Amino acid sequence: MNLYEHCVPQFKKMLGILDSWLALAAANAERRKFDPNVFVSARLAPDMFPLARQIGSACDTAKFTPARITGKDAPKHADNEHTLDELRARIKDVRAYLDTYRSQDLEGMETKVIAPPSLRGKSIVAKDYVIEMQIPNFYFHVCMVYAILRQNGVELGKTDFLGSLPVRDA
Amino acid sequence: MNLYEHCVPQFKKMLGILDSWLALAAANAERRKFDPNVFVSARLAPDMFPLARQIGSACDTAKFTPARITGKDAPKHADNEHTLDELRARIKDVRAYLDTYRSQDLEGMETKVIAPPSLRGKSIVAKDYVIEMQIPNFYFHVCMVYAILRQNGVELGKTDFLGSLPVRDA
Repeated sequence: MNLYEHCVPQFKKMLGILDSWLALAAANAERRKFDPNVFVSARLAPDMFPLARQIGSACDTAKFTPARITGKDAPKHADNEHTLDELRARIKDVRAYLDTYRSQDLEGMETKVIAPPSLRGKSIVAKDYVIEMQIPNFYFHVCMVYAILRQNGVELGKTDFLGSLPVRDA
Repeated sequence: MNLYEHCVPQFKKMLGILDSWLALAAANAERRKFDPNVFVSARLAPDMFPLARQIGSACDTAKFTPARITGKDAPKHADNEHTLDELRARIKDVRAYLDTYRSQDLEGMETKVIAPPSLRGKSIVAKDYVIEMQIPNFYFHVCMVYAILRQNGVELGKTDFLGSLPVRDA
């Protein structure tokens, strides 16, 4: 198992799950007769990011992970989404970008030293970057989206968080 | 990197971070002059678990991960905590349990097929169990604790979520 297998397919999966929540949120708003884009600026606390920025951060964390490790440029996003549809388009774009990576692209890079801009001049070993920064950051933002939607009455449950699991009959 | 390296040290680290939030919550309650154990039953939404159960679930997810993979019995916890101190004791107990594992205990178990009770008769490959079930579940519950505390006015920020990172001068 290399770094790719640890995070890239799961980031892609979770972004797909995140996208399905936005579809549920839109349907929920329609049923309750309000503009679904009200969700876009919803926050858990006044000094926390709104939904749009939480989604943008989850997307950025996912796209930058393989990009920083391999030294490639990730696609840019302007953080200017105002609708659920625009946010869903960004998620789709990042999922497609993750699809451009193959397991072998990250082969043997566990101990590579990288200096992602967010560390402002400091460096970190790639495996620590993935395990201690990117995976926690990614789940943080995805979970804040879940929390915002739940608190605003969107009917999500734990199964919607995990998505389908590759289980088999024992 | 085996399954141990991918999750056990990070679970231990995050539980330590979770513990530090409870210390901050207690200090916050003292300053604002209310019983700190009010936080224990706080919820994000009426049909979501309260803080105590979110912490219990994070602890259980962490302890069961190496236990289910290696086929060992994890320590039992009765889910009967009513105070922040009792919750902190549970976290301490699980952190000590994680310390009983060594990297070699999980060596070569990536493709082992296991049947954790939560899958009710189904089985899953150990690496999928870690990446698609346990890590997402663990962060879910840790993030819900963060969200509950933030919404109740405890001053936490992103740095408190990630904790200290093994960075070096570039």
